[in-house]
Amino acid sequence: MKNSKFRKSCLELGLLLAMSVFMTGCVVTVDGKSAYIAPAPDTAEVSNGASADTDREVINQVSLLQGLTFGDYSGSVPVSRLRELGDTGIGTFDALNGELIMLDGTVYRAAYDGSVEEVADEETIPFSNVTFFDADEEFSLSGIDNVNTLKSELDAKVDELGDNRFYMIKATGSFTNMQVRSELPQTEPYKPLAEVLETDQTFFDYENIKGTVVGLYCPAYMNDLNAVGWHFHFVSDDRLYGGHVLDLGAEELDISIDRTDGFAMVLPDNDMFNNFDLTIDQSEDIKKVETGED
Amino acid sequence: MKNSKFRKSCLELGLLLAMSVFMTGCVVTVDGKSAYIAPAPDTAEVSNGASADTDREVINQVSLLQGLTFGDYSGSVPVSRLRELGDTGIGTFDALNGELIMLDGTVYRAAYDGSVEEVADEETIPFSNVTFFDADEEFSLSGIDNVNTLKSELDAKVDELGDNRFYMIKATGSFTNMQVRSELPQTEPYKPLAEVLETDQTFFDYENIKGTVVGLYCPAYMNDLNAVGWHFHFVSDDRLYGGHVLDLGAEELDISIDRTDGFAMVLPDNDMFNNFDLTIDQSEDIKKVETGED
Repeated sequence: MKNSKFRKSCLELGLLLAMSVFMTGCVVTVDGKSAYIAPAPDTAEVSNGASADTDREVINQVSLLQGLTFGDYSGSVPVSRLRELGDTGIGTFDALNGELIMLDGTVYRAAYDGSVEEVADEETIPFSNVTFFDADEEFSLSGIDNVNTLKSELDAKVDELGDNRFYMIKATGSFTNMQVRSELPQTEPYKPLAEVLETDQTFFDYENIKGTVVGLYCPAYMNDLNAVGWHFHFVSDDRLYGGHVLDLGAEELDISIDRTDGFAMVLPDNDMFNNFDLTIDQSEDIKKVETGED
Repeated sequence: MKNSKFRKSCLELGLLLAMSVFMTGCVVTVDGKSAYIAPAPDTAEVSNGASADTDREVINQVSLLQGLTFGDYSGSVPVSRLRELGDTGIGTFDALNGELIMLDGTVYRAAYDGSVEEVADEETIPFSNVTFFDADEEFSLSGIDNVNTLKSELDAKVDELGDNRFYMIKATGSFTNMQVRSELPQTEPYKPLAEVLETDQTFFDYENIKGTVVGLYCPAYMNDLNAVGWHFHFVSDDRLYGGHVLDLGAEELDISIDRTDGFAMVLPDNDMFNNFDLTIDQSEDIKKVETGED
């Protein structure tokens, strides 16, 4: 309920802002506390730091989503290292400072104010999933009226390719609507993620915006290590807008899918992670975190 | 119940065999169907195939224990590859042909008849966990009256070092008693593991036997990917006897423990694995498989 009210006030302020800020083909709604649009970098680097013998068929995971859910927002892996582990993926930053999207080897932050920026190699990551993207199949989807339609279509493809594996997808095109969220950076002592999202979540609605959704599929047996099923982040073609996808629509999307049979995880070396009781079922909190719903 | 009866008949036959076969300091009980003792190799190779930049702080897992539980005994990774992923570990072989123990880079099979042999690089592995063993701590334990005492002592150490990480241990010394099991190799179509163990499990009891237990600890969040807690395999110093540990006792053991913060998994590329419904809770079957109890 808190989320809905907060979102409504964001939407109202956003309409005012939309009249004063230059927007290319989209309506943006931003958090009232610090409303500005950061400039995007002129060029996006597409190189990555991988050595020649890197295993490209591995989903590399930093920590557990369940660690993040408990409130472990302390970055453990620098962006420079993440770029050695993949060129495509999703995650977040130290102190929960925005939503991470990695595309073509560049790491972007979709910040609490809706802006997107390229992230320096020195920043650290508390949770992320990345891989080197090699499309195993490419196809189009049409008539995507909401995010659940997209998930259903992709689930059908996963059924065909094997439910018990990992998949990264890229969905590129013009989105008729795109609803994303980010969140305010946190200060210690950290609150659990579900609590943070009740007060510090920010929402952004776009229309007719071109860009790419990066999506990760985790099989059912990952229930205690990540979110099972699909998890989507978005960044616009102009690298100005992005975030964790809550809903979307598109008349037609180009999909590329990377089937991945390897999974690797590196655990953070901090006392907070050591002392979590990860036997506690956090599935309700994870659901809330994923969907933005209570 | 079947297990108990079968075991009793094995014990009786074993006593007869014990009188006719040369034993160095131990009593062996073997399955009546094919009772012989295979010679052990004269020398054990201690080299491994790791390249200089292999990450030694990773537990490498082939497939899921849950895949094995469903009956996926098809080997997917050759022994040669396993030796590139670690020098110490546990697992099984294609067609469930015995219990795997890897020690100092050599892969041994503890077969259905209680014999131990070194395994050729070409054989394949359907499930295993290996790592390059670097002792982080070394200590002694005394008064180990059964396997649960050993688990409790090791759990105390894990509590100290962090419950949410992975550990490999080596426990070396003279065991006052050692009860292990192996199983008959299977033919397709494969039955689920719990069914196989009801009819095709073989038990062996040793007394005053010198050797090493290799043990893996998986944290609680691995419940859908492996067995949570400790899993032990044994091989004797003379490389003549071994298997999956059901019980043991020792007056004093030298323990070395390798804390490991990385986990990596490679999934098998076969239709059987693709089609499992891994959302089904197999914890009861896993418990049965681990303890040999109904």
